[in-house]
Amino acid sequence: MIKVGIVGGTGYTGVELLRLLALHPHAKVCAVTSRKEAGMRVDAMYPSLRGYTDVVFSTPEDAGLGECDVVFFATPNGIAMGEARALLDAGVRVIDLAADFRIGNVAEWEAWYGMRHASPELVAEAVYGLPEVNREAICGARLVANPGCYPTAVQLGFLPLIQSDAIALDSLIADCKSGVSGAGRKAEVSSLLAEAGDSFKAYGVAGHRHLPEIRQGLSRVAGEPVGLTFVPHLTPMIRGIHATLYARLVRDVDLQDVFESRYANERFVDVLPAGSHPETRSVRGGNLCRIAVHRPQGGDTVVVLSVIDNLVKGAAGQAVQNMNLMFGFAEDAGLGIVPLQP
Amino acid sequence: MIKVGIVGGTGYTGVELLRLLALHPHAKVCAVTSRKEAGMRVDAMYPSLRGYTDVVFSTPEDAGLGECDVVFFATPNGIAMGEARALLDAGVRVIDLAADFRIGNVAEWEAWYGMRHASPELVAEAVYGLPEVNREAICGARLVANPGCYPTAVQLGFLPLIQSDAIALDSLIADCKSGVSGAGRKAEVSSLLAEAGDSFKAYGVAGHRHLPEIRQGLSRVAGEPVGLTFVPHLTPMIRGIHATLYARLVRDVDLQDVFESRYANERFVDVLPAGSHPETRSVRGGNLCRIAVHRPQGGDTVVVLSVIDNLVKGAAGQAVQNMNLMFGFAEDAGLGIVPLQP
Amino acid sequence: MIKVGIVGGTGYTGVELLRLLALHPHAKVCAVTSRKEAGMRVDAMYPSLRGYTDVVFSTPEDAGLGECDVVFFATPNGIAMGEARALLDAGVRVIDLAADFRIGNVAEWEAWYGMRHASPELVAEAVYGLPEVNREAICGARLVANPGCYPTAVQLGFLPLIQSDAIALDSLIADCKSGVSGAGRKAEVSSLLAEAGDSFKAYGVAGHRHLPEIRQGLSRVAGEPVGLTFVPHLTPMIRGIHATLYARLVRDVDLQDVFESRYANERFVDVLPAGSHPETRSVRGGNLCRIAVHRPQGGDTVVVLSVIDNLVKGAAGQAVQNMNLMFGFAEDAGLGIVPLQP
Amino acid sequence: MIKVGIVGGTGYTGVELLRLLALHPHAKVCAVTSRKEAGMRVDAMYPSLRGYTDVVFSTPEDAGLGECDVVFFATPNGIAMGEARALLDAGVRVIDLAADFRIGNVAEWEAWYGMRHASPELVAEAVYGLPEVNREAICGARLVANPGCYPTAVQLGFLPLIQSDAIALDSLIADCKSGVSGAGRKAEVSSLLAEAGDSFKAYGVAGHRHLPEIRQGLSRVAGEPVGLTFVPHLTPMIRGIHATLYARLVRDVDLQDVFESRYANERFVDVLPAGSHPETRSVRGGNLCRIAVHRPQGGDTVVVLSVIDNLVKGAAGQAVQNMNLMFGFAEDAGLGIVPLQP
Repeated sequence: MIKVGIVGGTGYTGVELLRLLALHPHAKVCAVTSRKEAGMRVDAMYPSLRGYTDVVFSTPEDAGLGECDVVFFATPNGIAMGEARALLDAGVRVIDLAADFRIGNVAEWEAWYGMRHASPELVAEAVYGLPEVNREAICGARLVANPGCYPTAVQLGFLPLIQSDAIALDSLIADCKSGVSGAGRKAEVSSLLAEAGDSFKAYGVAGHRHLPEIRQGLSRVAGEPVGLTFVPHLTPMIRGIHATLYARLVRDVDLQDVFESRYANERFVDVLPAGSHPETRSVRGGNLCRIAVHRPQGGDTVVVLSVIDNLVKGAAGQAVQNMNLMFGFAEDAGLGIVPLQP
Repeated sequence: MIKVGIVGGTGYTGVELLRLLALHPHAKVCAVTSRKEAGMRVDAMYPSLRGYTDVVFSTPEDAGLGECDVVFFATPNGIAMGEARALLDAGVRVIDLAADFRIGNVAEWEAWYGMRHASPELVAEAVYGLPEVNREAICGARLVANPGCYPTAVQLGFLPLIQSDAIALDSLIADCKSGVSGAGRKAEVSSLLAEAGDSFKAYGVAGHRHLPEIRQGLSRVAGEPVGLTFVPHLTPMIRGIHATLYARLVRDVDLQDVFESRYANERFVDVLPAGSHPETRSVRGGNLCRIAVHRPQGGDTVVVLSVIDNLVKGAAGQAVQNMNLMFGFAEDAGLGIVPLQP
Repeated sequence: MIKVGIVGGTGYTGVELLRLLALHPHAKVCAVTSRKEAGMRVDAMYPSLRGYTDVVFSTPEDAGLGECDVVFFATPNGIAMGEARALLDAGVRVIDLAADFRIGNVAEWEAWYGMRHASPELVAEAVYGLPEVNREAICGARLVANPGCYPTAVQLGFLPLIQSDAIALDSLIADCKSGVSGAGRKAEVSSLLAEAGDSFKAYGVAGHRHLPEIRQGLSRVAGEPVGLTFVPHLTPMIRGIHATLYARLVRDVDLQDVFESRYANERFVDVLPAGSHPETRSVRGGNLCRIAVHRPQGGDTVVVLSVIDNLVKGAAGQAVQNMNLMFGFAEDAGLGIVPLQP
Repeated sequence: MIKVGIVGGTGYTGVELLRLLALHPHAKVCAVTSRKEAGMRVDAMYPSLRGYTDVVFSTPEDAGLGECDVVFFATPNGIAMGEARALLDAGVRVIDLAADFRIGNVAEWEAWYGMRHASPELVAEAVYGLPEVNREAICGARLVANPGCYPTAVQLGFLPLIQSDAIALDSLIADCKSGVSGAGRKAEVSSLLAEAGDSFKAYGVAGHRHLPEIRQGLSRVAGEPVGLTFVPHLTPMIRGIHATLYARLVRDVDLQDVFESRYANERFVDVLPAGSHPETRSVRGGNLCRIAVHRPQGGDTVVVLSVIDNLVKGAAGQAVQNMNLMFGFAEDAGLGIVPLQP
């Protein structure tokens, strides 16, 4: 049993880590920090966890994070970059679910995130935690930058097409739809049920922080810069991301085979039969990305449909997958949960 | 007061016509047909109408449609094409909310709709009822083909770009999201709340019947064939369509001005300020299309966001707008309803 | 045309007043105050109103409320009691949509609302604005206390039973379910779609502020104190209240007749046929209360089902109805809106 | 590993059994029948199960049910009563998730269910599968009648009050709210998202089939007939039941203690701290009943709030719990799933 600490356990990625780790065979959560809720039982805030944990929120000072084997940061952007160094120095491995270490180019990160980076040297060390691309590096990492939710769905959808040289790289389009839990557990008018319910809208069309992250990931795989238009939308549901991806085919390939071959050995990426339309609920609560590929009317536009649960494969589940790799556990340890349908 | 008949009043477009016409200053619904519900009061099926109508469903034979001034077909595809002729011969004007007269090429229609067309000669006569394009022809029409819901949102979004020669016509993309009322009031498992709720999916990626309709509309305006990829999605809400449109800019134009100029005199098309993200709820219950245009990061991809209420501007409201034009009423008579927010 | 002012126009009852008054034949909104949003167009915050109003939020100081004929307070509790006096002195009539003047017993009000009352003398003057009970007094009132949402649904459901001496008064039960707009447009975690969506809960079982208001209303009608258990619940929808009322029958009456007779002349209370189950959506957006009465298995428990739209008959619609009475307009002026279904 | 058969695996209780049994340590699903879908893979209908099962639907004739250790009937009412006998004779244990064996009085069953009972003698043998009441009998049973969803939530809520002689038994009230999955996976207009979404209604007020089942269960415990008013409602969510229970106190007891003592040793009943309001989402996907008890304003009405997931503790989860008892497995084998929140 390894000892796990969670910094910032009151948000949705925090409670999702607690749900997944509650049944993990090799990991035990020993500390969950929240300066605001220190002293409160975690299951008093999240009654769904009653009977599964008796952890109490503690202040960062009292949490004993330095004695953990691994610490997850389920915090807003900008926290982990200030605290990771001390933990790493104490021999603790770190997985950041926020964006602090995702972008290799520090100047670009600072421009998009509007703050000065506190640990540029750690950015160079951090491994981008998309196991389907970086498995080997993750296994040996001290510090993992867990990918964003949109970037996970989009990258897994475009990867096979890029790696098979099937598409033009200058005009990729990612039209993405997210449930509202993606906005986090923040008291904001725009996320109220009375505001976001029974309605649909785009947001951030001028520029969303996940754009540079996706562009970086795809460009690394392609070996050259890609051109991407990324439009996120808010859909009136709680969990789930549906990415609809468009690209221009430049080579005649067997698309179904390209995807099935690429993901044949991936436990958490499921290529659906030709002609399928994955629903977000088919991955609700599970650490899965389900993908279908289409070529409408046999034209030269390929359409990829990629769905994940934003809190699982798009956040906490992928973080546990990374932890499993870092500690040599079975990659799916604690991640066998069957999605909840209906 | 003109006399109005509605064929097939039990579906969502039927009841929406009844809602709109209940308060119309110049039209009175005299007959609503439903073979299955004949004898039942309309407001027994739709209690929302209690106090606003005392009409009783009647069989087509007893309805006296021949004495109406105008008859709306709120029926499945394939009904109006068999019944319109007799009404027209009796001097009744006809507005079909289904697809029977929307596609000018009868062979193409038959291929997409999987049936033989009963009245090809009427296809030639029918006017496509998108007032923002065909206002003059509608004013003089006996037979109007009311546009589909997706086609309304998509055409209104692309029109200014095409008419200003701003975009490449070979690779348009329309990524559309619809509430479930678009599937009609049909008992189907896939439309159950327990199936379609809290989930999101694409459908019909291989080919949807609205594709040829949109392509026809845009090609007519362009004066040449356009290439279009159209992907519809189902979103867990009741009303509303959000079309996200992508095109490649080939000319440097003031996009905001192009849209504002095009729709300056259109009562039912509202161009939002630059930078806006229209929500479907902003048109819930109202006969409006609200549009915003973006050019992310100043690149050469233009993104248009276009929202309508699929049952109003996408169906019954547009049908009433067409009726108003055909009878010389104010175009917005009975259509002043303020959208319901929240 | 009378001149209308609205204090606190950024919340849901404020925007609902704007929706209803936009089409009112005898009233024009001249001022909407919001200290925080002063200078912003109302339709910039509420795009659903684009095309229907050009009012700009103003500070209370600049609004010119003293020149209005009537001012609505769509504010949190505790505002109107401080500002009403000056307006009344200036000859302006006042309708408070909050709770300041609803409870006749000032000490009881202070206990439930946790503040000192600023104008006890106005409490005595204020008329409780439930037209179905107090129509005559409302017609002559300067100051109207608009009822709460739950109190409207519950009182209209119990009234016929009490007035016909049909039930025991010591053990009434009101099990009420509300959509989330009842919580207002406030940034609170508990009202997020990700929190309140796809879930159901009771709240305030120990005591809710609408309890004394309902008890007062029913006791006045009964002429003696009534015993009431009131349990409110939050249901994952936007608008609507469903009150399920239970009482013990002490007299054998024709329940259907009791209700139909009581409300025969009420434009906004609709008694459904025996055996009906009203849905909240049947009143969505409309100023209506629909009621059905049941006597399960012929036992001695009567069950009343009463539904309203909490923002219309439960707030802004009833306020306009009161305004109509106070100014001698037709009671349904501007309130002819057909509910939106589906 | 015991061999499990499921008759009628296409409905919601069927797929929920598959979800729960996929990870059961001692049970393996060998056959799932569906005459209509025979030959289709189960995970083609339910993509959420992809990767967790390779079972194919088979006809009842080909399923080899006689070689199973236990067969679950996840069928409409009236099927199990015709088929259970042959299985029992073959030494197979049977758990019926429908209502065929729930009501001891065959005449009463026939009156409520509108059909002739095919196996009255099995009714006498069947054990009512509410483990918190009948654990011992279940352990030795061949045939278990799995309780209905409402009856589970209501009985668990009233039991401690009845067993402690705290309440009057003549006028119990159960005001219950259910998500739409309770209506099953049936193509019905009233369960469409466009009909049941964003709305709330009561149904079956005149009489619901769960009434006699609840009455029987409570009367058995009380040792005398109880008087019950039961009003079910439909709430716009997928899973979950919230029962709000009302009774008149006749004895001064420590309510919190009465509940905590009664369920101290029950793994699947969770009594919340005094003052709590359980949310249905706190049990979403988990085999739990969470309960809170209130005495508003210290009066003589006790209010109990009881929530379950209708498909888990209200159906498939309880069935697996019963199976565990019948086969001597740990009662919570396969039932450790943490509820999904948000």
